[in-house]
Amino acid sequence: MLKEVAGGITFPRGFKAAGVKAGIKKNGKEDVALIFSTVEANWAGRFTTNRFPAAPVIVSRAAMQNVSGRAVILNAGCANACTGDQGLADAKNTAKQVASLLDIAPEAVVVGSTGVIGVPLPMEKLSAGVRQAVAELSEFGGEKASQAIMTTDTFVKTCGYVTELGGVAVRFGGMAKGAGMICPNMATTLALITTDAAVAPEVLQAALTEAVDASFNRITVDGDMSTNDMLVVLANGMAANPQITSLEGPEYTEFAAALRAAALNLAKKVARDGEGATKFIEIEVKGAANDADARKAGMAIANSPLVKTAFFGQDPNWGRILCAAGYSGAELDPLKTTLAIGGVQIVDGGLGAKFEEKALRSVMAEREIKVVIDLGVGTAGTTIYTCDMSYEYIKINGEYTT
Amino acid sequence: MLKEVAGGITFPRGFKAAGVKAGIKKNGKEDVALIFSTVEANWAGRFTTNRFPAAPVIVSRAAMQNVSGRAVILNAGCANACTGDQGLADAKNTAKQVASLLDIAPEAVVVGSTGVIGVPLPMEKLSAGVRQAVAELSEFGGEKASQAIMTTDTFVKTCGYVTELGGVAVRFGGMAKGAGMICPNMATTLALITTDAAVAPEVLQAALTEAVDASFNRITVDGDMSTNDMLVVLANGMAANPQITSLEGPEYTEFAAALRAAALNLAKKVARDGEGATKFIEIEVKGAANDADARKAGMAIANSPLVKTAFFGQDPNWGRILCAAGYSGAELDPLKTTLAIGGVQIVDGGLGAKFEEKALRSVMAEREIKVVIDLGVGTAGTTIYTCDMSYEYIKINGEYTT
Repeated sequence: MLKEVAGGITFPRGFKAAGVKAGIKKNGKEDVALIFSTVEANWAGRFTTNRFPAAPVIVSRAAMQNVSGRAVILNAGCANACTGDQGLADAKNTAKQVASLLDIAPEAVVVGSTGVIGVPLPMEKLSAGVRQAVAELSEFGGEKASQAIMTTDTFVKTCGYVTELGGVAVRFGGMAKGAGMICPNMATTLALITTDAAVAPEVLQAALTEAVDASFNRITVDGDMSTNDMLVVLANGMAANPQITSLEGPEYTEFAAALRAAALNLAKKVARDGEGATKFIEIEVKGAANDADARKAGMAIANSPLVKTAFFGQDPNWGRILCAAGYSGAELDPLKTTLAIGGVQIVDGGLGAKFEEKALRSVMAEREIKVVIDLGVGTAGTTIYTCDMSYEYIKINGEYTT
Repeated sequence: MLKEVAGGITFPRGFKAAGVKAGIKKNGKEDVALIFSTVEANWAGRFTTNRFPAAPVIVSRAAMQNVSGRAVILNAGCANACTGDQGLADAKNTAKQVASLLDIAPEAVVVGSTGVIGVPLPMEKLSAGVRQAVAELSEFGGEKASQAIMTTDTFVKTCGYVTELGGVAVRFGGMAKGAGMICPNMATTLALITTDAAVAPEVLQAALTEAVDASFNRITVDGDMSTNDMLVVLANGMAANPQITSLEGPEYTEFAAALRAAALNLAKKVARDGEGATKFIEIEVKGAANDADARKAGMAIANSPLVKTAFFGQDPNWGRILCAAGYSGAELDPLKTTLAIGGVQIVDGGLGAKFEEKALRSVMAEREIKVVIDLGVGTAGTTIYTCDMSYEYIKINGEYTT
C-alpha cells in the first residue's frame, strides 16, 4: 500500500512553503525556508543530545511542549550555536516575527538553523527574509524551501509517499540537509516531514521515535554530532482519515511504516551526499548479541577513517573492517566472524577466505557497496549507512570559512 | 635528577639489538628487529584490547605470564593478524627459532608484528632475517632496530633517559612506531622500553600501567585502535641499584617518573608523526568532573575529523571544538566553558570572547598548537596529544596496498 512518489513537504494537503534569498549564505543562494500548515497540526520532534544545543534547539524544544503548532522557520548560513543570551533572544524574536506576520502564537512556530557555529544571526537580513518568505508562501514552495536549508549538500534531499489509513489516502513529504557534522544520536540533522494524516500527538511522537531510531540514528558521515540536529514532523489531519489514537492496530502499523520510510529515504540521501563522498556504503551487521552491539560495530566500521579511505582508494584492505569491529566494544567471536563485500565472501571463521582478488577489486570500484559482517555470537542485527572519505572532504572542511 | 639524553634501547647496560632487511617490507628497508638482554630481565607489557588480537599479541601475552625473559623479536610489513591457527603457529615458531639460536627458552621471547592485516607471515624470509639479526646483535644496534619497526613513520622514534635510584645511575631507552591506526586504549602501539634498573616484576608492571595511562593512552591519530598494539618494558638490573620492591618510597617515585617520561616522549613522537600530519596539537582539558570525563572530552576533540581538518586548513573554526566536547559524553557547563587556542582566549562562558582575529590566525599557522578547554564543572584534567588531518592522510590510506 505504501508507495513512493515525486513530491516534497508541500505534497501533503494543507502545507505551504517558501524558500528565499536573505543574503545569509555567502554564495547568495536561498537561505531562509518557511513551512506553514493552513490548519493546526499535531507535531513531534527529536533534537540533538549535544551538550551545546544551539539557541533554536532550545527555543523549539520549549515550543514543542505544546502538542501542536503551525509553522517552521529555518535558515542556513549561520547555526546560531554558542551565541549565548543574544542567540536565544534572536531565535525567539524570529519565531515572534513569523507568528505576528501569520497571525498565530509564537509557541506555534519551530525555529531551526544550520551553518557556522559561534557567529550571531544577522537579524536584519533574516528579518527581511522572513517577510519575503511569508509573502511567497505557496503550495508549490516545497522545492525552494528544501534548497534553502542546503549547506555543503550537492543535491536537494526530498521525498514523498502515499499510503492508505482506514481506507483514506494519506500523503507524506520530507526534506533534509546534510552533508558534514553528521552522526546523529537520539536526534538527527535538520529535517522536516509533513503529513496530512490525522494522528494523536502521543502516537505521532512514538512513531517518530521509532522512525528516527531506524533511520537517522543509523547514518554517519564523519562521526561528528551537530549542535543543531533537529527533526520535526507535522501532521495536520487534512486527509480526514479516522484519527489514529493508539499504538495498536493496522492503522498505526501502516502510519509508522510510512513515516519510517520517509525518514530512511532522507537519511540515506544524507549519507549518500556526505561531504566529498564518492561512494555510498551500506554496512549490514548480523549475528550480534543485541541491538546496541550491532549498532556499535556498524558505527565503528562506518566511522573508521582507515575504512573510509580504503573505500575511497578502492583498496580491498578488509583487515581494517575487522579491526574496527574488534575495537567497537561489541561482543564478537573472532573464530566465527564472517565478512562479505559486494557479495564476495572475504572472511570466514575470522581469517581470509579463498576469493578472487579480481572479483573483489571490481566490487570496490562500484559507487554503491554493501558490506555484510556477521559477529557470530547472536541473532541481532542492523544496517548503518555511510560514505567514503576523500581528498574533497579535507578540502571542504579545511577551507570552510569561519 | 631525571635527564633526557641521546640514545635508544641499547643505551641501558646489557642490551644488544639488531635491525635487518628480510624482504618483508615492499620498500626493501629494515623490517626485522631483535632486542636481547645479556642477563635475565624482569618484564611487563600492555596489549591491545581489540577483540581481534593479532597472533603475536596472543603468544606474547602468554609468554609474559612469566615475570622475566630475555628477547624481543619484531617485524614490520605484516601484522600477522586475522591469520587464524597458521598465524599462531608462525608466531610461536618465530619465538622458538629465536630461542634456539640464542640458547634460551621459547617463553623468554616476546614476539610483535606490524603491517597489513589478514596476510600470512612470509616465514622463509622472516626466518632468514632472524638468523641474520642474531648474528648482528650488538650494543650499537638500537638505531637499526628502531628503523626496522617503522611503517608509514617519517622519522625514527627513540628516547633515552638517566636518573638515580638509591645513589646509583640508572639508564632508560625506548623505541616506538606510529603512524596510523593510532588510538590506543589500555594498550599502545608497538613500543619497547629498556632499562638497567633492578625492579621487582610486580613493581615494574604497576609503574608501566601508570606510565601507559599517562602517555600512550593519551594520544590519537585517527581513532583506530590496532589489532597489534603492544608495549613491553625490560628491566635487567645491570645498574646494580638496590632492587625496588615496593610502590612506596622515593626510589619507586623516581623510577616511575623516568618510565613515564620515556613513554610520554615516545607517545608524543607517535602523535607528532601521525600519517600526513602537518601540525602537532596538544589538547589540555581542565575543569572536568573526573579523569574519565577529561579523557572523553579531549579524545572527542582530538578524533573529530572536522577539528582536525580545520587545523590543517589553519581555519580558526572554534565552534567545532566546543561541538566535539558537547557530544563527547563528558559533563560540562555550557555557560562556564572557556576555550583558548595558542594563548588566545576564544570562548568565555560558552560564547565567543572578544579576540583579535589576526592573533588567532597567526596562532593557527604555527606547527605546534596548544588548545586549552575548561569544562567548568570540576577540578579534574588531562592532556591529549594528536595531529591534524591532511590530504596526505587520505593519500597514504587510500593507496596503502593490501
